[in-house]
Amino acid sequence: MGGGEITKRGKGLVVLAVKTFPEDAVKETLAEIKEEFPDLEFHYIWPKFEVKKNDMPDSDESEIPNIKFIQFVSAGTNHVSKHPIYTDTKIPLCNASGVHGPQIAEWVVMTDLIHNHNYLYLYEKQRKKEWKHSNGEISSQDNVGRTVGILGYGSIGRQVARVAKAMGMKVLAYTASPRKTPESKRDTGFIVPGTGDAEGEFPDAWYSGLDKKSLHAFLKLKIDLLVLAVPLTPQTTHFLSTPEFALLAANPTRTYIANIARGAIIDQPALVHALHAGQIAGAALDVTDPEPLPKDDPLWDAPNVLITPHVSGVTSTTGERCFQVVRENLRRVRDGRGLVNEVDRGRGY
Amino acid sequence: MGGGEITKRGKGLVVLAVKTFPEDAVKETLAEIKEEFPDLEFHYIWPKFEVKKNDMPDSDESEIPNIKFIQFVSAGTNHVSKHPIYTDTKIPLCNASGVHGPQIAEWVVMTDLIHNHNYLYLYEKQRKKEWKHSNGEISSQDNVGRTVGILGYGSIGRQVARVAKAMGMKVLAYTASPRKTPESKRDTGFIVPGTGDAEGEFPDAWYSGLDKKSLHAFLKLKIDLLVLAVPLTPQTTHFLSTPEFALLAANPTRTYIANIARGAIIDQPALVHALHAGQIAGAALDVTDPEPLPKDDPLWDAPNVLITPHVSGVTSTTGERCFQVVRENLRRVRDGRGLVNEVDRGRGY
Repeated sequence: MGGGEITKRGKGLVVLAVKTFPEDAVKETLAEIKEEFPDLEFHYIWPKFEVKKNDMPDSDESEIPNIKFIQFVSAGTNHVSKHPIYTDTKIPLCNASGVHGPQIAEWVVMTDLIHNHNYLYLYEKQRKKEWKHSNGEISSQDNVGRTVGILGYGSIGRQVARVAKAMGMKVLAYTASPRKTPESKRDTGFIVPGTGDAEGEFPDAWYSGLDKKSLHAFLKLKIDLLVLAVPLTPQTTHFLSTPEFALLAANPTRTYIANIARGAIIDQPALVHALHAGQIAGAALDVTDPEPLPKDDPLWDAPNVLITPHVSGVTSTTGERCFQVVRENLRRVRDGRGLVNEVDRGRGY
Repeated sequence: MGGGEITKRGKGLVVLAVKTFPEDAVKETLAEIKEEFPDLEFHYIWPKFEVKKNDMPDSDESEIPNIKFIQFVSAGTNHVSKHPIYTDTKIPLCNASGVHGPQIAEWVVMTDLIHNHNYLYLYEKQRKKEWKHSNGEISSQDNVGRTVGILGYGSIGRQVARVAKAMGMKVLAYTASPRKTPESKRDTGFIVPGTGDAEGEFPDAWYSGLDKKSLHAFLKLKIDLLVLAVPLTPQTTHFLSTPEFALLAANPTRTYIANIARGAIIDQPALVHALHAGQIAGAALDVTDPEPLPKDDPLWDAPNVLITPHVSGVTSTTGERCFQVVRENLRRVRDGRGLVNEVDRGRGY
């Protein structure tokens, strides 16, 4: 998505060169943006605009003078990190991080409820047209008073926390570095309006650390639902492995795990063992290692596992949400405030 | 469950004659109650205490002097309405209404998410060990910006509203009589702590009326999820029938219906037709007409229907929750406040 030329008085040109979405897929938000910025001239270019494989227009800074920002529709910008605009200019680049928070958080809530309410048992009854049940078989309980532990308190984790709180749960947040001040607890990225946890108000307690000792102290808490929402890094690779499942097994409430991050955060053979051994109550996995998961992978046959093919973020609303980020950044340029979701070229995201 | 003899200074006797739950099933809350009321003497009687078929001890007022209240573990008290204590005394009778709010609300949220996120399509892929999908087939969207219409704003509807708000939804409440004042919007019954909507703060708008004209005006709103949580009365029998489905069919967003109330609130043949005709997006039904649903009922074969056998409220925590009502009423007696969930003998509930 191209950036634009916007003067401080709000006049200027916005070039929207969008390979991913036809204009029709973003029409609602685009109409709202045009209404909010009547002095801006919008050019929506799709798909004739020639974009290179690397998703960046083949132009340099001299061709787009006075450019305020370039907005990407992806959470990452690794794919353009060799482009001259990335390497040789200081044009602000903004990513679309945060737009999938609610969608993926709902996948976590859904799979937790399916597990807690024994829904798949009930579904099998429906398939057989059987209206009956044994109370023992569906012994379930609601989330009131249960504890969710969230590894990685970003846009997804924060929306899980919001819904979990509404269900009466206790929320424990786990972050890479400590969040001791109100400022450090804030979400400074784009937040879908009405969702998330901008101020970091929902956690009952905060924990942190990328070392195993810190992680182990966290896993010893009585966590009913453990949500994996951390980025995959050398430290988080196989973050949950045999010793961690052994620790979880000591939890009398039996932990249910939801992974919407990356498959390799879990040592998958260790997970398969943990499921067969009953060390955990079960696992809901939208990601596996590898993907696609081969048909003969033993994970398919493990008990109490729910597998979906990396779809938790797939939605028909991505385009509209990405344009909400554009709107937010147009507002910030107009108001002379800092951009949201600006990529730190040094850090790479 | 028997009531007790409690003096205003908090001294006295609490007789807990509980046919439904062994003491072990309520031990956590009972321990908390005993700690909070150290001056009370508790007698837990189960199951040797002889109770008649009608669930009420075979005694009259003279045998239980100075009784403050009798707490039932059911939401209704119809089953004891012929008993002399009911008919001939003014001993306060309290029901357990509200204890199932969170459990049933979660069933509504779960089925809504299963529908929205096309989970059953994904489950069938898992059954076949297939890691693949077509984006078109699972085109889904999260609940942000969607609208839930709640027919019957009691303990269940209020907890649905709380979670729906957290998911970013708009909430429309529909009640039998108008709720125009802050007082009338309040939930005065027992509320599981941390859940529900005590003050009636979550609805974006309130609607009311038991007549079809009022209902039709409500159904013309663009409701994405319509939750049926009204009691079954002559007015609400077949509250949704052919004309109502025709109205919903005009909704461009296509409504999904969740019924956790009673089967007969929906005219079931009309529903089957509406499902086949695509007048609504689908229906999640924990209740049917009749129950059990016969194996040859056409409802089983209707498209986009989710059926569970009246289990949305089945939970292993009922006992603990009922004792939370006892605790609340012990507090109120101690503090000289009015009881919660006191049965209005005239009204019958």
